[in-house]
Amino acid sequence: MKIGILGTGMVGTTIGSKLVALGHHVTLGSREAGNEKGAAWAAKAGANASHGTFATAAAEAEVLFNCTNGGSSVAAIEAAGAANVRGKVLVDVANPLDFSRGMPPTLLVANNDSLGERIQKAFPEAKVVKALNTVNCEIMVNPGRLSGDTDTFVCGNDADAKARVAEILRGFGWKSVVDLGDITAARGVEAYLLLWIRMMGAVGTPHFNVKIVR
Amino acid sequence: MKIGILGTGMVGTTIGSKLVALGHHVTLGSREAGNEKGAAWAAKAGANASHGTFATAAAEAEVLFNCTNGGSSVAAIEAAGAANVRGKVLVDVANPLDFSRGMPPTLLVANNDSLGERIQKAFPEAKVVKALNTVNCEIMVNPGRLSGDTDTFVCGNDADAKARVAEILRGFGWKSVVDLGDITAARGVEAYLLLWIRMMGAVGTPHFNVKIVR
Repeated sequence: MKIGILGTGMVGTTIGSKLVALGHHVTLGSREAGNEKGAAWAAKAGANASHGTFATAAAEAEVLFNCTNGGSSVAAIEAAGAANVRGKVLVDVANPLDFSRGMPPTLLVANNDSLGERIQKAFPEAKVVKALNTVNCEIMVNPGRLSGDTDTFVCGNDADAKARVAEILRGFGWKSVVDLGDITAARGVEAYLLLWIRMMGAVGTPHFNVKIVR
Repeated sequence: MKIGILGTGMVGTTIGSKLVALGHHVTLGSREAGNEKGAAWAAKAGANASHGTFATAAAEAEVLFNCTNGGSSVAAIEAAGAANVRGKVLVDVANPLDFSRGMPPTLLVANNDSLGERIQKAFPEAKVVKALNTVNCEIMVNPGRLSGDTDTFVCGNDADAKARVAEILRGFGWKSVVDLGDITAARGVEAYLLLWIRMMGAVGTPHFNVKIVR
């Protein structure tokens, strides 16, 4: 499958490498075509990996991952072009974290709104699925490194898009993909970051996740 | 131990009954002394159970539980009397949920503040420990009914107070009590409710909790 990734940071390159390893063709996009991190990643990740602008990454992709900083995600997708995201599955991995007042961060949008909803509203013809934002990127693509099974979440307005993302997540090793409902559930998984950061401090590593026990 | 509980709803009566069963003397407090739910609970819960006003419940207690609605918690503790909470461990179980715009609820205070912090600021001489607010009240007092071990959280500014609350929680059956830090971590456990509500919808029962897996 042709997959576009917006963002050349840790999250984008980690997911990109995993998708290439799984046999997908991946284009990493950044604000400028000559982005060094994008070029370095593509050189290292192999023949099915390329890099370019946000628009290049989005244009031919069947599925897109938003791995930009939450504060600039809407602008990044605008740069990718509304026409290039139309009708496509757009997996929103970003968290709207605000570090401007130091640690721990707060959220740029919270409680009665969410980044996932803002992206869906800004690009109503995209099929936004919020996913993977509740774990560190190493866990996103390798949940099996944890000592036991845990849960990951999807939410969004399009059932087929969620099913398609769930299939990708199972390819990453996720055994339990919990559907939380429509895109407004992004309020929940994004707000969870405020707890996640405190749990990280308590457990002493970002490499953890939660399992739902009934 | 003499324990006062503010609030005669499901959470207050469930915790009160558990504490009586564990041998404590419990006074359930409500806005008015003649509260029917308080009287009914005390009549049923046995010789070590009594009821009265918020002030009555607080006056002789060594440890207090705030089990009122989050939106009226500060007013309830004011009614209990600042002098009656001075120097005491005050376990804040409440969630600042706002159902005024229907389901799912939002939070009355969130992101860069929390109910736990507001209570600590309003009653600086109380030792506020946020605890138990991340699970349904049946799970609060009986975590063993779940199919496996899970985690519960405490946060607060006073280490001795947290240790004392953790001991009470172990008495309830909690094997893992995770210390998330100072009272500002209440932002995390309260914001988690936005996810908890969506998870409840997905799993189909309020009787669940999460386990941290490393």
